[in-house]
Order: sequence, then C-alpha cells, then structure tokens
Amino acid sequence: MTGRPSERPQRADARTNRGRILDVAEDVFGKGGESASTEEVARLAGVGIATVFRHFPTKATLLEAVLVRRFDRLREQAEALLDAADPGEAFFDFFRLLVADAATKIAIGEALLDAGGDGDGDTAEAANGLRRAVGGLLRQAQQSGAVRGDIELPEVYALLVGTSRAAAHARLDEEIVARMLVIVFDGLRG
Amino acid sequence: MTGRPSERPQRADARTNRGRILDVAEDVFGKGGESASTEEVARLAGVGIATVFRHFPTKATLLEAVLVRRFDRLREQAEALLDAADPGEAFFDFFRLLVADAATKIAIGEALLDAGGDGDGDTAEAANGLRRAVGGLLRQAQQSGAVRGDIELPEVYALLVGTSRAAAHARLDEEIVARMLVIVFDGLRG
Repeated sequence: MTGRPSERPQRADARTNRGRILDVAEDVFGKGGESASTEEVARLAGVGIATVFRHFPTKATLLEAVLVRRFDRLREQAEALLDAADPGEAFFDFFRLLVADAATKIAIGEALLDAGGDGDGDTAEAANGLRRAVGGLLRQAQQSGAVRGDIELPEVYALLVGTSRAAAHARLDEEIVARMLVIVFDGLRG
Repeated sequence: MTGRPSERPQRADARTNRGRILDVAEDVFGKGGESASTEEVARLAGVGIATVFRHFPTKATLLEAVLVRRFDRLREQAEALLDAADPGEAFFDFFRLLVADAATKIAIGEALLDAGGDGDGDTAEAANGLRRAVGGLLRQAQQSGAVRGDIELPEVYALLVGTSRAAAHARLDEEIVARMLVIVFDGLRG
C-alpha cells in the first residue's frame, strides 16, 4: 500500500471541499449571532449550497462534525502534553487554553441545539475523549506534586466547565478571566 | 398614619393573588422544562388566566417580577449577614447558598429570554443590588483575614457565576458541587 495513486481528482477535491466547509463553519458558527447560516458557510467557502448538503445532509450534521473535529484536535494537543517536561505547567496551560477556547465551543454547541441536534453519539464520544485526556494531564500533574492529590477529575472538570461558562457567558475581559484562574489554580495547587 | 384601615377587601385580595401567582410562577418556571406555562401557573394558583394577565400583562413581566423578588430576597439575606459573628463563614456560606440556588434562577432567566424579555431594567437593578451585597460580604471577610486581600469582586463574582453555571448546566450531584467548592474556597482563603 503506497498511498492511493489511483484516486481520482474529484475525490481529492471532495476532501478539500469538506475540510474547507468545516473550517468556515467553525469560524461562522463559532462567532455566534443571528446571521450564522449554512448559506453563509457555502458562500464564504466558495462552494454551492448543494455541495455543503452533499457532505452534510443537515445543519446539525455539519455542526456535529465541526464539534467532533474541535474536540479531537484539543484531545490530540492534550495527549501531546503528556510528554511535557513540567507536568504542572502543562496542566495549567491546557486548562487556560480550554477556557480561552470556550466561547467558540459554546456558540457552536448552542447552534447545534437550535438546529435540533442533541450532541450525543459522535460528539459525546469526542467530548469524552478530551475529558479522558485532561484526566491524564491531571494525574501527571498530581504525581509531580504540582496539583494536590486529594481531588479527582469530576470536580476539576466541573471547575473547567464553570470557568469556561463564566468567561463565555459574561464575555468577561481577559484580565478578569486571568484573575479568576489565579484563584482556581491556587486552590488546585499541591 | 396607622396602616390602611380604609383599604377595601378587593385590594387586599389582589395583593394576596399577586403574591400567590409569584410563588407558583417561581416554582413552575424554576423547574424549567417544556410544560412550564402561564396557564399552568394560573391553574396551580387557583385563579383565572385573566387574573394573571391583569397583574402581569405579559409572560415576560411575570418572569421579571419573579426574578426581581428572588434577587431582592437574596440581597436581604446577604445584608443580614453583614452582622455575622464570623465574616469568613458568612461569606463562604452565602457563596454556597447562591450556587445551590442557581439552577432555579437560571431556568427562570432562560424562560424570560424565551418570552422575549431581556433582563434589563428592574431585573438588572435587582441583580446589581445582590452583587453589591456580595461585595460587602467579601470586603468584610477580607478584613477579618478569612479571604485573601489581593482579589476583587469582579473575579469573585465570575467564579460565583461559573460554579453556579457548572452546577446547573451539568445537573451535577451535590457531592461533586461540594468538592468543586472546596477547591475554589481554598483558592479564596486568606
């Protein structure tokens, strides 16, 4: 098996289109707001609406694919940090990254609910994959002594969800978010 | 002025009805869910739907009145705690109370948005009154040394909103909420 030399150009094009549609959809729906629509995604991706629907039969399928890709990408980042030289720094940096990323994720999740999707199935599986990876970072940070040993993933994940929702909900400015995380991180420290 | 001896019974009845409608509405909409409606409120309050609409011309006015009353009640509780013997305990207990109360408040707030209300005006003013009262409890706890002095109300309120939303959003069980608050409180301690 040396790649797919016999693959026809159309199929490669289709893959490119799919990726571009997902990129644009992540951007458009991640910003939230009333104007976000599949039509706008097609326009900005430079494809016809029929092409979007060929890849994603419903708006919910499109949004699910966007969320799954985001969760997978974040999970991969978390897994890469399992080799970090400073496990405490890796854990706190990744916590901060997830909170910074939250407004976009929540906007896409809300668009999915509005579109009649439920976030179960593949989306829930991808979200669980990310949660497990955060659990790995937590354990590693606890073993290094950077995070206290008497806490477990459920309450840490609840804090992650909470600080994320606070940051996204109130559209807090970055300084307040940073000051909020100082408090949480002091509470988490070993 | 010795009360209102000349008040006609109808007016006293109207006040009783208003209070009962608010109690029932708080209960019905606080539970959330699809079945919550003004009709159900009228039925459970034992009044006609016309009586509800005489007091509250729209569903949004009703929900705003429910929220204002809740915020006012919580503000009064916070103000009463300004005389507490242990200011640290008062602050942490009130923080815990607000988080426990959050699911109901968020459900009513969401029903208000669905009903076309914006939560501005009286609701925002009542919410700000509560926020100021929490600021008073925070300052007092900081002066007593129970809470660290290098933090301010915006980040503490962000944490309060965040932990509340985490608890309400994921319908976390009480033990996880309690464990999450242990971490936050350790971060807040002086």
